[in-house]
Amino acid sequence: MKVIESVSEMQAISDQLRQNGKRIGLVPTMGYLHDGHIRLIEEARLHCDFLVVSIFVNPVQFAPNEDFDKYPRDFEHDRSLLIGQSVDCVFYPQIDVMYPEQQKTYVITEDLGNKLCGISRPTHFQGVTTVVAKLFNIIKPHVAVFGQKDGQQALILKKMVKDLNFDIMMTIVPTVRESDGLAMSSRNKYLSDTERQAAPEIYRSLTAAKEMIDKGICDRVKIANLIEERLKSIPQFRIDYIAIVNTETLEPVDTVSEKTMIAVAVFCGKTRLIDNIMIGQN
Amino acid sequence: MKVIESVSEMQAISDQLRQNGKRIGLVPTMGYLHDGHIRLIEEARLHCDFLVVSIFVNPVQFAPNEDFDKYPRDFEHDRSLLIGQSVDCVFYPQIDVMYPEQQKTYVITEDLGNKLCGISRPTHFQGVTTVVAKLFNIIKPHVAVFGQKDGQQALILKKMVKDLNFDIMMTIVPTVRESDGLAMSSRNKYLSDTERQAAPEIYRSLTAAKEMIDKGICDRVKIANLIEERLKSIPQFRIDYIAIVNTETLEPVDTVSEKTMIAVAVFCGKTRLIDNIMIGQN
Repeated sequence: MKVIESVSEMQAISDQLRQNGKRIGLVPTMGYLHDGHIRLIEEARLHCDFLVVSIFVNPVQFAPNEDFDKYPRDFEHDRSLLIGQSVDCVFYPQIDVMYPEQQKTYVITEDLGNKLCGISRPTHFQGVTTVVAKLFNIIKPHVAVFGQKDGQQALILKKMVKDLNFDIMMTIVPTVRESDGLAMSSRNKYLSDTERQAAPEIYRSLTAAKEMIDKGICDRVKIANLIEERLKSIPQFRIDYIAIVNTETLEPVDTVSEKTMIAVAVFCGKTRLIDNIMIGQN
Repeated sequence: MKVIESVSEMQAISDQLRQNGKRIGLVPTMGYLHDGHIRLIEEARLHCDFLVVSIFVNPVQFAPNEDFDKYPRDFEHDRSLLIGQSVDCVFYPQIDVMYPEQQKTYVITEDLGNKLCGISRPTHFQGVTTVVAKLFNIIKPHVAVFGQKDGQQALILKKMVKDLNFDIMMTIVPTVRESDGLAMSSRNKYLSDTERQAAPEIYRSLTAAKEMIDKGICDRVKIANLIEERLKSIPQFRIDYIAIVNTETLEPVDTVSEKTMIAVAVFCGKTRLIDNIMIGQN
């Protein structure tokens, strides 16, 4: 497994692969890999001849008050894990390789990046779209795989790919969960034991909402109230948002339908956790 | 010469060319081609095996009060002209091919798009960077050629290419002029006879500034005053801006150096004309 740290070397490898008619797959990550990432890699493997996993903790998607510095990193662990997954190449650039001079160019998605997570993280999604556009131009994948856990991100990136005509197949993989339902995330590491015990209530409240919908109760306010009640009953939680929205516009819906995402963000102690379910999809 | 109107067909052709080891060159235009475009095409020809000229009047870079509707178009004339230039392919999409649904994704260049032309045309450059990013992803060129006449645009696009890691060689070609010095532009067609006679004073004032600098007078205010005086003496002119700026930051310089661009925009009657000279470059 190659570890590539340089942009021009990665571009040259990708050009050569394309010239040889090989399909390139990309799984972009911030490292500290867990089973959720492995699932993305397994999915990508099905669609390509040459699989690149990028590991880059992207400073541009963190606000100054956020956890960029303490975001967990363990490259040696990640590397050995990826060798076991028959990944062909890790793209592992340093910050000054990705941002060698003052970045002035950003990719923005109007109306989509300023909602849900974008309210408490106003510059987050432009950081994500910008770095993903950069990774696409560096790794030149035919297919890129992202997780449904970051639901708003998945939606925004799919819209970016369409709007900017990236010739890339976007595949979104269902959220991988711990046995108690907690969505896998590198940030789960921040949780204390008590917080970790409380955290699965996020998914349980989403599941309860889903059961309500399955019974035919589709009113947004009723569903939101149920979720709010359950989340508020947990002393470790502070709700950031509960959103019941159209999966394309992210605008609130009055009545839940097959094009609805229910997404929540909760501070569990100091750790911000997100999760979502898509109605009408598994 | 092929005329391609579909995004997916163009992408497939480009993929095949790249797989065959061919270098693709791109000259993006809004059509109504003149000798300035021909010069771009000649330059591109030197750097590629397969030359694509795109013709697309991009609505997103025009403000509602601007000349999108009346912008001159003559595809049959353009096509016959391009056949004579041994262009391999014209990419000629309709608007709904380029913008099939509501565009939400834009490429912006902070600090660069809001100066000079960006003051009177606040959304212009995000329209340009966005459509050029789209064309890059559709045509997948190895080299792209632009004109120095649109000096701010050239600078912004070069910065975009660097910042987003587009693996594309950017070539900027010196402005092509009429025999009396007027920079060639499709918009010159708008000029009445009197306006057309007045218009070359724009370049003459830039040339006079250059002569002043060659004599060792490098103070911005003195140079700007000279240009302003000359432009104000023409009754058909209304000055939009006179900018003496660093070629990378577009910030005003106190003293002209080898990294200075002198750029002007003038309304000649109702037609907005721009021109510039680069100090220390030919």
